[in-house]
Amino acid sequence: MALSDLLGKFNVSEAIEEETRHYVFNHTMLRVKDLNQSIEFYSKVLGFVPVYEEIFHDAAFTIVYLVRRAFSDIPTDDVLRKEWVLSQSGVLELTLNHGTETDESFKYHNGNSEPRGFGHLCVSVPDVVAECERFERLGVKFQKKLSEGRMNHVAFIKDPDDYWIEILQPTPLR
Amino acid sequence: MALSDLLGKFNVSEAIEEETRHYVFNHTMLRVKDLNQSIEFYSKVLGFVPVYEEIFHDAAFTIVYLVRRAFSDIPTDDVLRKEWVLSQSGVLELTLNHGTETDESFKYHNGNSEPRGFGHLCVSVPDVVAECERFERLGVKFQKKLSEGRMNHVAFIKDPDDYWIEILQPTPLR
Repeated sequence: MALSDLLGKFNVSEAIEEETRHYVFNHTMLRVKDLNQSIEFYSKVLGFVPVYEEIFHDAAFTIVYLVRRAFSDIPTDDVLRKEWVLSQSGVLELTLNHGTETDESFKYHNGNSEPRGFGHLCVSVPDVVAECERFERLGVKFQKKLSEGRMNHVAFIKDPDDYWIEILQPTPLR
Repeated sequence: MALSDLLGKFNVSEAIEEETRHYVFNHTMLRVKDLNQSIEFYSKVLGFVPVYEEIFHDAAFTIVYLVRRAFSDIPTDDVLRKEWVLSQSGVLELTLNHGTETDESFKYHNGNSEPRGFGHLCVSVPDVVAECERFERLGVKFQKKLSEGRMNHVAFIKDPDDYWIEILQPTPLR
């Protein structure tokens, strides 16, 4: 559907731009059971870099912001880096409530069984077939391999909390 | 904490960059009860633009991708626009399972009561005080106003499904 038709269908006016020009969709926050395991997964498997950590001792939680960005883009100065990460789009915030990492029975809800809500994150890659082979070599858990189900151009992998991460490529499969 | 210390603490190697250089954290997907209401909210309140819609008739669901971006940045060509949106970072995907919009008792789970998991989205703005005043004028529902709770520099608003959206500014309050 043409963009103008889509805007008309949903009654979206270009006037929205004036008031919201400087708004940035900054981050998505997920609670994780074990911060070390999650950061290992998001960095080694998907290339996310943890760039800012804040520990709230009184409230017993820790947050870490991660970005999928070249190291050379990330400010080294601590104050600038915090302002930078809160100005970017496509940031992942992971929250650890202290103690869950040592509670064997503790588990978060990934939103894809009842009660449903949040669905998934998505990482796009230039070549979905090649990257799924890489995930297999790394021993990543799959929710849906490319060959499974009806959509052979999309896979879903799972992070350590079983949150789903869609893997796709922007262009059609060759 | 210095970036190098943070990378050391979480055992993150700069070698991850080689294999994941072209990965993009593309989108976050939320299921919504009523797509028209949600797009009205995300466009009028937060300036998101719906740029691509796909209707899956057999499986009875519709997805829409939205971006917080200037209209002039968005390709008008339909094929290019789909490739473009799947190559961007900071995209929001909304999923409608057909029929929920007319089911009065239907409600999605926002992840912030048991069973918990997903926490919130976040939109950063240049001046959190001014924008929260704008949200008040628009009649937006708040989960937490700036003046409530311990953190007076952060607010949380709610979308039509009661998903939480954190509002903050990258710099300290003046």
